[in-house]
Amino acid sequence: MRKVYFNGKMIPENQAKISIYDSALMFGDMVFEMTRSFNQEQFKLVEHIERLYAGLKILEIPIAMTQDEMLSACYETIDANSDFFEDGDEHRLMIDVSRGLLGIYQGIEGIESGPNVIIADFPLKWTVSSMGKLFDTGINVVIPSQRVIPSRYLDPKIKNRSRIHYLMANIEISKYEGNNNWALMLDEDGFVAEGTGDNFFLVKNGEVITPEPRNILRGISRDYVLQELCPQLNINATEKNIEPYDVYNADEAFITGTPFSMLPVTSINGLPIGNGQVGGIFSKILAQWSLNVGLDIEAQIKSWQGANTSNGPTPYKFK
Amino acid sequence: MRKVYFNGKMIPENQAKISIYDSALMFGDMVFEMTRSFNQEQFKLVEHIERLYAGLKILEIPIAMTQDEMLSACYETIDANSDFFEDGDEHRLMIDVSRGLLGIYQGIEGIESGPNVIIADFPLKWTVSSMGKLFDTGINVVIPSQRVIPSRYLDPKIKNRSRIHYLMANIEISKYEGNNNWALMLDEDGFVAEGTGDNFFLVKNGEVITPEPRNILRGISRDYVLQELCPQLNINATEKNIEPYDVYNADEAFITGTPFSMLPVTSINGLPIGNGQVGGIFSKILAQWSLNVGLDIEAQIKSWQGANTSNGPTPYKFK
Amino acid sequence: MRKVYFNGKMIPENQAKISIYDSALMFGDMVFEMTRSFNQEQFKLVEHIERLYAGLKILEIPIAMTQDEMLSACYETIDANSDFFEDGDEHRLMIDVSRGLLGIYQGIEGIESGPNVIIADFPLKWTVSSMGKLFDTGINVVIPSQRVIPSRYLDPKIKNRSRIHYLMANIEISKYEGNNNWALMLDEDGFVAEGTGDNFFLVKNGEVITPEPRNILRGISRDYVLQELCPQLNINATEKNIEPYDVYNADEAFITGTPFSMLPVTSINGLPIGNGQVGGIFSKILAQWSLNVGLDIEAQIKSWQGANTSNGPTPYKFK
Amino acid sequence: MRKVYFNGKMIPENQAKISIYDSALMFGDMVFEMTRSFNQEQFKLVEHIERLYAGLKILEIPIAMTQDEMLSACYETIDANSDFFEDGDEHRLMIDVSRGLLGIYQGIEGIESGPNVIIADFPLKWTVSSMGKLFDTGINVVIPSQRVIPSRYLDPKIKNRSRIHYLMANIEISKYEGNNNWALMLDEDGFVAEGTGDNFFLVKNGEVITPEPRNILRGISRDYVLQELCPQLNINATEKNIEPYDVYNADEAFITGTPFSMLPVTSINGLPIGNGQVGGIFSKILAQWSLNVGLDIEAQIKSWQGANTSNGPTPYKFK
Amino acid sequence: MRKVYFNGKMIPENQAKISIYDSALMFGDMVFEMTRSFNQEQFKLVEHIERLYAGLKILEIPIAMTQDEMLSACYETIDANSDFFEDGDEHRLMIDVSRGLLGIYQGIEGIESGPNVIIADFPLKWTVSSMGKLFDTGINVVIPSQRVIPSRYLDPKIKNRSRIHYLMANIEISKYEGNNNWALMLDEDGFVAEGTGDNFFLVKNGEVITPEPRNILRGISRDYVLQELCPQLNINATEKNIEPYDVYNADEAFITGTPFSMLPVTSINGLPIGNGQVGGIFSKILAQWSLNVGLDIEAQIKSWQGANTSNGPTPYKFK
Amino acid sequence: MRKVYFNGKMIPENQAKISIYDSALMFGDMVFEMTRSFNQEQFKLVEHIERLYAGLKILEIPIAMTQDEMLSACYETIDANSDFFEDGDEHRLMIDVSRGLLGIYQGIEGIESGPNVIIADFPLKWTVSSMGKLFDTGINVVIPSQRVIPSRYLDPKIKNRSRIHYLMANIEISKYEGNNNWALMLDEDGFVAEGTGDNFFLVKNGEVITPEPRNILRGISRDYVLQELCPQLNINATEKNIEPYDVYNADEAFITGTPFSMLPVTSINGLPIGNGQVGGIFSKILAQWSLNVGLDIEAQIKSWQGANTSNGPTPYKFK
Repeated sequence: MRKVYFNGKMIPENQAKISIYDSALMFGDMVFEMTRSFNQEQFKLVEHIERLYAGLKILEIPIAMTQDEMLSACYETIDANSDFFEDGDEHRLMIDVSRGLLGIYQGIEGIESGPNVIIADFPLKWTVSSMGKLFDTGINVVIPSQRVIPSRYLDPKIKNRSRIHYLMANIEISKYEGNNNWALMLDEDGFVAEGTGDNFFLVKNGEVITPEPRNILRGISRDYVLQELCPQLNINATEKNIEPYDVYNADEAFITGTPFSMLPVTSINGLPIGNGQVGGIFSKILAQWSLNVGLDIEAQIKSWQGANTSNGPTPYKFK
Repeated sequence: MRKVYFNGKMIPENQAKISIYDSALMFGDMVFEMTRSFNQEQFKLVEHIERLYAGLKILEIPIAMTQDEMLSACYETIDANSDFFEDGDEHRLMIDVSRGLLGIYQGIEGIESGPNVIIADFPLKWTVSSMGKLFDTGINVVIPSQRVIPSRYLDPKIKNRSRIHYLMANIEISKYEGNNNWALMLDEDGFVAEGTGDNFFLVKNGEVITPEPRNILRGISRDYVLQELCPQLNINATEKNIEPYDVYNADEAFITGTPFSMLPVTSINGLPIGNGQVGGIFSKILAQWSLNVGLDIEAQIKSWQGANTSNGPTPYKFK
Repeated sequence: MRKVYFNGKMIPENQAKISIYDSALMFGDMVFEMTRSFNQEQFKLVEHIERLYAGLKILEIPIAMTQDEMLSACYETIDANSDFFEDGDEHRLMIDVSRGLLGIYQGIEGIESGPNVIIADFPLKWTVSSMGKLFDTGINVVIPSQRVIPSRYLDPKIKNRSRIHYLMANIEISKYEGNNNWALMLDEDGFVAEGTGDNFFLVKNGEVITPEPRNILRGISRDYVLQELCPQLNINATEKNIEPYDVYNADEAFITGTPFSMLPVTSINGLPIGNGQVGGIFSKILAQWSLNVGLDIEAQIKSWQGANTSNGPTPYKFK
Repeated sequence: MRKVYFNGKMIPENQAKISIYDSALMFGDMVFEMTRSFNQEQFKLVEHIERLYAGLKILEIPIAMTQDEMLSACYETIDANSDFFEDGDEHRLMIDVSRGLLGIYQGIEGIESGPNVIIADFPLKWTVSSMGKLFDTGINVVIPSQRVIPSRYLDPKIKNRSRIHYLMANIEISKYEGNNNWALMLDEDGFVAEGTGDNFFLVKNGEVITPEPRNILRGISRDYVLQELCPQLNINATEKNIEPYDVYNADEAFITGTPFSMLPVTSINGLPIGNGQVGGIFSKILAQWSLNVGLDIEAQIKSWQGANTSNGPTPYKFK
Repeated sequence: MRKVYFNGKMIPENQAKISIYDSALMFGDMVFEMTRSFNQEQFKLVEHIERLYAGLKILEIPIAMTQDEMLSACYETIDANSDFFEDGDEHRLMIDVSRGLLGIYQGIEGIESGPNVIIADFPLKWTVSSMGKLFDTGINVVIPSQRVIPSRYLDPKIKNRSRIHYLMANIEISKYEGNNNWALMLDEDGFVAEGTGDNFFLVKNGEVITPEPRNILRGISRDYVLQELCPQLNINATEKNIEPYDVYNADEAFITGTPFSMLPVTSINGLPIGNGQVGGIFSKILAQWSLNVGLDIEAQIKSWQGANTSNGPTPYKFK
Repeated sequence: MRKVYFNGKMIPENQAKISIYDSALMFGDMVFEMTRSFNQEQFKLVEHIERLYAGLKILEIPIAMTQDEMLSACYETIDANSDFFEDGDEHRLMIDVSRGLLGIYQGIEGIESGPNVIIADFPLKWTVSSMGKLFDTGINVVIPSQRVIPSRYLDPKIKNRSRIHYLMANIEISKYEGNNNWALMLDEDGFVAEGTGDNFFLVKNGEVITPEPRNILRGISRDYVLQELCPQLNINATEKNIEPYDVYNADEAFITGTPFSMLPVTSINGLPIGNGQVGGIFSKILAQWSLNVGLDIEAQIKSWQGANTSNGPTPYKFK
């Protein structure tokens, strides 16, 4: 069975559990990261860990590990799991840090006080196995009634577990007619913010545009597109306030997210974006990404289609 | 060791844990209740369970148990723990319901899919042992920079675990000079909302006033004061928008919460409310409550002072 | 062919048209009312006309007719149409008042300058013929992403034609799965406002509650329920800020609107309200209304079912 | 008499009318454009039609015509009217598209179901004949109490007829002392948005600045100034949030609009902008525009002064 | 020459001055009250002083005087001025309390450190001499673009000197056409708040309604009307959110303020309220007030008309 | 004794006072500037005077003096005070302009009607004498509950005296534990605005970033850093919306203000910014500033430490 790093020990995946008295379960008081590998090589792991520590600092969770130690722990976890991964599998790490037991529970025998550091290693394919076809059809983004929480109340830039509203948005969108519907949430001003686990981009007149980094998680994939891939391709890329009007009138659109890198968005609320097909700039950027990491991202995900139906878990649901 | 009800089984308290792949830990996706007994008799347990089910319905968590079965499970849990409680101890129940494993994790051997129903029974005294003196000095409420999340984004009336902002408010207030500081949070309009685990009341010209039930948890203790105790005492009690100005000019103030029932508030931001003493109406209502439940609430809490220092856990912190 | 009152003349219904240069078409600058009869007797016609004139005053549309003259014109219109109505038909009046031609167009030969007063008489049955079954199943209200415009920007209490956002809400809801979906719009604070042509009520603990009259049209049927029917039945009825949470936890719910008087609401976003059945208080109020006007409102609408399929227009769409 | 294109036919201008049952009159549900010619040559007609179709798409009005067919229809309309225009007249086209009859009215004999496409051709001079002197005096912009509707409620970028609030702003400003007062509306944040039919610009330190394109109609003339004229003249031109403070401290200001191209703004709320005179950059840009289109825009408008007094309609009112 | 109480001394009125280094001039950091007499008897002086001290407490101005000492100081001031008042004059007291010198200026020789307590006694007639005719014509309230500052930023319930926005509203309204225009300010939600020195009331169906006490100064005259005069006359009086729509449709309206007690409001933005005449309920309440204080308030103010033209100061301007 | 310019005359500093009837004390209706010298040379005096006149214009204070005359008056004031300054002292000018007496007070003998123009000259050292150590330790900025007033209600860009909320923020922060706490205020959106007398900057990846110039005073020192010092040093400097998240994650931070030029910010809410030390870019910019003005700014302020303890006023408090 896969192993999970838990405060320095490797334990079986199904024993990786958190006490009901942990602040993580009392207050959603946990910071986390999700990473992935390309060809078994972790991608931007240092950047993920930096973002993790930014959240820990602001929430004042008194973690003892340094960022370097965290990095080492990640690699240890991957090593400990190598036997449980098939050839060609990619490692999706989930790093969780909770504050630990609230004060009054700290005397209970047999529960570690915390903070708790947990690193789980999971085959990426099960996360994305149902997404292959989306590279051809694209996603239909739907604007739910549920808005993102403005950052002054609860900052989405801190990647934390108090985020039931993302789940609520997903439930709402599941009631829409049609397939391939993904939620695209607006902020209080009516600006496009983000999906419930992804960042949004549009393309207009050859320029790549993504929402200002205010009411969103500043995704690592988002930064990679903005700051590395687009410059590499001489594509102008900027952050701007985007309204639904701009999406309706875009030439193309796409989303980014760690598990799938990029997916095309071909319609909004059922109305086509551009010509309703996967866009050329999307394809160009994805190709560059594939080139940079040395594997065909789209082909790999398509190759995993159905992976889960026989003996794996059920497909991706409510990201 | 104390036992915890976990999906129909009684397990040791330190084994009551939730998988890291549970929606509760992924999204703060858990509904809960905290109840207490007076003289070992659960107080308003039915009302707590009704509120729990209201939250489950809106979040669409597909629980199979009926409200009656939940009630029975609570009593079973208390029975299973009676040997672990000292005489005079009161039973504080914590009922947790999580949606369970997200789809892609449902195939992992040895983790229940959920929904998960958990009932823990904990000696109330450790929750309140440090509060005895507050019945004499009163609390100083401090208004933090952190505002409550407006209910249209994430409804506080659903008692759920996506609530790290309460913890942030507590951390902020811990940096103020002085003792007995408790956070009193405002809403977006600048109206008084609630504490980070309690409801607020003021008294003006003999009338008891509490914030409108919009951006708050509608506490069971709050309802008891409004709808039963005040009418019993012929005290006029109403819900109204309250501003800090009104608190500064109140005759008295107090808070309510399940663990301690009621506590006096004698100052705001360091400035006295009324004459800065525990108020007469507060005392009258608390006396009636004590009468109704057949024990002296204040005396009981004072009797527990220091209970924890010798062999129990550390005192109440960050409610 | 039916006749339409047009600035004092009776013209054929298909000639009742407005110049493209009229302020009504330039700016949505038209105030209107919809009324109906019970047993060919107009209901609350005076109240409708008063509301019409309140809007005309605030928009400063310089109408020359008095309210009494307007009343007479309504009756003339009904008389002129009596031959074109079948036995048992009810008269639905639509009263439109536009400012008329903008200045630069006032010289064009053959177009009246305005203000224009138009009264059309239309068989009510075609408006409601498809609604009979809703008295049994109830409506499912769905909360769209589209919010009502706050009254400080454009006051919905002025019944005017600048209201494309109602139509947008209807289009949005038409994409939800299921039947009998009607939009229930929220305001900027997340309070329930109104449907796209109806007012909302809930019932809780025997009390009838409807949103505060701020961001809504203050419907004549709404007032009738609040101020006449409920008092007649000794039912307590009040205006209050209502949130979706309150609707999820209501015992019953219903809407009011001139064409159908009242319709039961049995679910919200697909989740049952109360026991998911038509409520007892709803039935009681509707029965009283029927008694007061001397006809069985529900039975009459059910009797019209299919009226339109043979030779009338297509059914009610986008109220 | 002038002819109007109406669903493929040319009809007399005073017969160009819309049924009272059309969605345009029921909901302000009509998208439109206003264009003009310079030397009888339509200006940016393709851009106007593109914007029209952007609105039709978002409102989901199912028009059958392609953009090319619409373009042809415009030219046909101009041809059909050439005999009714004097030498030197310019053609102002108004293109209207309505959804057509609501469902229940679709069976009425003699009314086209729609969507309705209407193109009217009107002598531009009557729209602008009173504006000649404003090129010398400039306009005094006045900030009314009426704010623009935030775009998340009703998007002004869709050029539609639900816009009675523009008219309300004009009525409000008409009560101010003085002449040449035009409304300059703010948005909810207090940023300058737009006039009631024009876009606003200021000049500061040689740079041309106009509000961000959020709560405004993105005017074709505005785009022409920003994207063509300023670059042509090597003037830096940007979109920025502008507050009244910035207008009070600007060096110059002006507005743009299709009928008049550009007009100088020399004061705000009665206080001078810059030295209170028509600005040099304004004049430079207008001169370039005149050059580009091959006629002196200002002189042409001045030449039309009084055109309407003898035999035309009354002057421009409530833009 | 009239005398002013200044930190315990009586000094000539033209020597009553504040150092430029006083916090009052640095930050608008001064709390104040305006009172008046009827028949030389101070009206509600205790209530005014209570409100003054509420403000001092919240601003934490460390005044040494008790409320009783303040009361005595007021009477001393009146006594000291009795020779300078004509028969029939009423005493308008202005009580000012400033925090005093900021720290770095406290060493300057010859400036008192403060807090400073100042009581000036001024003939009321000069404040109201131009208002007599308003009892016959009524006021036209005009809604300016300037909104009140929401109380969570700067609480208007603290009667303080940081209130330049009231002056800005007055300047704005002075540019409207017509006479007798007074500003009626809205709050952020578009609710009617207050005038720039008066509270607003409307009358509808025999009920007296005034805005909720949130974004306003809670006037002493306002309280007197609500809590004493209306009950005395068996008139129902309540606090409610009021919108301009409600004012347009009111039966009557009026304002209250210490100098003039009450004035009728007969129109809003130039449109008549009710029949455009002084209202009957207004007259009834004013008559009762006159009865209670033993003088005809309206007659007294009318008798002072022109008082100032010969030898007094210029009339009331920018209240 | 030092002299103060008062409407053209030089009067002793302790006689520089404002009548209690002046609009400045009635409404906080006064515009002001604070300037300083370096080596007795006034810095950016023209820019300060321009900003003063921008405020006077918007508030419509009818000052008769030209900007040139104001400049001369400043120099006259400095000359008149040269004997009262020690060698090495710097001249801090405070320029105040008030509207003067409200109308009804204009006849009182012996009080100038105004507008009043006042220029005071004060040794800068007493303002900054306690700040020397802050160049080593840095400031801890603390975010208070008090937000800045949004500029649409009261524009902070007009440097005026209605600003008690700055003082309220200072009082609030004075209750925090620790030393060197300075308030850093947020705006309504949760963006960092400004201190209570200073502008905020952060440094990230070598770039200097300061809040957009919306809800702040646009400081002269702020402009100098942005537009002169950073370009001089080839440091990229921009205006951007900044959130607390950005401050927590900044590399360095600092504030600017006329009296002290620049001060390092080393922590926020007690958590270190960057490595918690004074930043390198801060030091570079300050060094350049010192170079430009020909004196070591930090050394000068440190040399004044204790200056006030012997014979001057108490130190800087509540800026």
